[in-house]
Amino acid sequence: MERYPVGMVPGPVRCPWEVLEAYRGEYGSPDLEEEFAALYRHCQGRIGALLNSKGTVVIQSGEGMLALWGALKSVMAPGDRLLAVSAGVFGSGFAQMGLSLGLEVRSVDFPFNSVPDPEVVRRHALEFAPRMITLVHCETPSGTLCTLKPFGEIAREVDALLCVDAVSSAFGAHLDLEEAQVDLGLIGSQKCLSMPPDLAITVVSPRAARAIRQRGYQGYDALMPFLSSPEPGAFPYTHNWRALMALSASLELIEAEGLERVTARHLRCSRLCVEGLEEMGIEIFPERREYSSPTVTAALVPQGIAWSELDRRLRAMGVVLGGSYGPLAGKVFRIGHMGNQAREHLVQRALDALQEALCGL
Amino acid sequence: MERYPVGMVPGPVRCPWEVLEAYRGEYGSPDLEEEFAALYRHCQGRIGALLNSKGTVVIQSGEGMLALWGALKSVMAPGDRLLAVSAGVFGSGFAQMGLSLGLEVRSVDFPFNSVPDPEVVRRHALEFAPRMITLVHCETPSGTLCTLKPFGEIAREVDALLCVDAVSSAFGAHLDLEEAQVDLGLIGSQKCLSMPPDLAITVVSPRAARAIRQRGYQGYDALMPFLSSPEPGAFPYTHNWRALMALSASLELIEAEGLERVTARHLRCSRLCVEGLEEMGIEIFPERREYSSPTVTAALVPQGIAWSELDRRLRAMGVVLGGSYGPLAGKVFRIGHMGNQAREHLVQRALDALQEALCGL
Repeated sequence: MERYPVGMVPGPVRCPWEVLEAYRGEYGSPDLEEEFAALYRHCQGRIGALLNSKGTVVIQSGEGMLALWGALKSVMAPGDRLLAVSAGVFGSGFAQMGLSLGLEVRSVDFPFNSVPDPEVVRRHALEFAPRMITLVHCETPSGTLCTLKPFGEIAREVDALLCVDAVSSAFGAHLDLEEAQVDLGLIGSQKCLSMPPDLAITVVSPRAARAIRQRGYQGYDALMPFLSSPEPGAFPYTHNWRALMALSASLELIEAEGLERVTARHLRCSRLCVEGLEEMGIEIFPERREYSSPTVTAALVPQGIAWSELDRRLRAMGVVLGGSYGPLAGKVFRIGHMGNQAREHLVQRALDALQEALCGL
Repeated sequence: MERYPVGMVPGPVRCPWEVLEAYRGEYGSPDLEEEFAALYRHCQGRIGALLNSKGTVVIQSGEGMLALWGALKSVMAPGDRLLAVSAGVFGSGFAQMGLSLGLEVRSVDFPFNSVPDPEVVRRHALEFAPRMITLVHCETPSGTLCTLKPFGEIAREVDALLCVDAVSSAFGAHLDLEEAQVDLGLIGSQKCLSMPPDLAITVVSPRAARAIRQRGYQGYDALMPFLSSPEPGAFPYTHNWRALMALSASLELIEAEGLERVTARHLRCSRLCVEGLEEMGIEIFPERREYSSPTVTAALVPQGIAWSELDRRLRAMGVVLGGSYGPLAGKVFRIGHMGNQAREHLVQRALDALQEALCGL
């Protein structure tokens, strides 16, 4: 296949050596060995500690969308009210998913280049009295990050569960689940954890756990079977031992560096990226600098230039950036500086290549 | 972790070097690269050819249970009739899954040491007029394999869809999906494909595809999004490029050896295993030799011996076999000679260790 020395797509992220090594090992059956259950519990504890949660960390075998579907279906019954806060593609996605489940959905929409306004959301929440509020921490397609805390307060005020898609923010941006009062924190392995896209992680608060047990939903994505004590034979399917070893290796890298230093590194990369783009005369997509996510920078494709052509030129120089999705396709491009890609020298190489590519256009 | 030179658990199977190497590579984003879509299509075509199907091969990111849930939920609506044919743990599992979905379920149960009797099933099918018939090709926990063809004929006769769990038979036992008129053929990666448990494969007949489109079910396990042409951006989530490369490597091993030779090797291992056990005076679990699956041999734990103690002794000799599940736990043990473990020298080592372990008891 084509190989590019500088891969800066906002997920799946390039995996470090330590993570990939885990896949080469030979392991026994996760259904039989206490060692696997111990590894699972060890990962649970470390994730809970890093993200400050006293809840249950559920680790499922599949891509991050598994966490999104699992959270919605495990809690919500047809007719239940979902307040879908949307300032981007994934925020709107929650509304669509809710409709497909027969929920009563109210969307609270904000421009894709901004972040949700808590006061507006609060008004709707008080009026609508939802069972769940969905929110996206980092909207990867638009490169924005919102502040969670006010939404946690709103959720408590109206007695709703707060479900937060933290797929591309967790372990890269500041995320304190207790402080933000998040009931369902959704994480994917291929973003700031720098793993392949093979694990979906959901941090379930005690409140959410009660709701899940009450609902009793069953399915591949069901969270309920994971709420009981993880022991050999207690998992609903043969888990992925290699992926759990990779997760353990990824967490070890984060722990060794220290999560605060990790998030500071992401912030430095973000600043370098935003300032570098602005120096080149490229406008970043978020309407204010402070909305820009520390994990990914979205910028406008310069007027008169086709993204496909820019992409082609960048690839010829060994650099791959991301385009965007939905209404942003062709208009926005993205530099993913998350996890293993949150390295200043990589961001600089991407910026240099971009400058060179634009010169010739 | 503890390592055992001879791992003969009936899945997850020990992975060959060629398969594990695929996980070390660096790949781009499956959402962006046509190369990934081409790889996916290439795997589809080869699986269709090996299993003789003109249907759509769906490859999902997750464990084999994803295929089971996906098939049921993608086709069946609450109130629909499911005829669950059961001669084992997974057969009964389908009935339970159906009940959890609000289906009208009729179970046709046979003893776990036998295989389903087509005449009995036919009578129930004519009477019950189900929308779907579920059947398990190889009941791994009881080590049995049934003949599919009569059930395909019954399904056509009553105009039902035939859904077959071929998780631990496909690529190890004879399986011709067209000949058997299977509408949904369910496969997991960690059995005869000798991969980690990270892919679920469903072969969808044109009849089943129509039913899936009509139902319009959405979810992580939904088959519908995979029925359209696989192109970059058309997948419902970021797929697992490494797992697809591993699948490709696994298929290459099968193609190089030739599927007929592969299934013949499984049969030889099965015979060696069954005869070896009987020579030792150990009774195999299936009530007739011809019910025994070429991929796994289930046998009765000898009277007066605790499986836990036998297991401990075998492990001390570097050999891991499988126990069993549900009503068979403690009574039945299993030797998994599937995929990369279907090697006569490995079966012989397992038998030798068993003999030695039993001598001391």
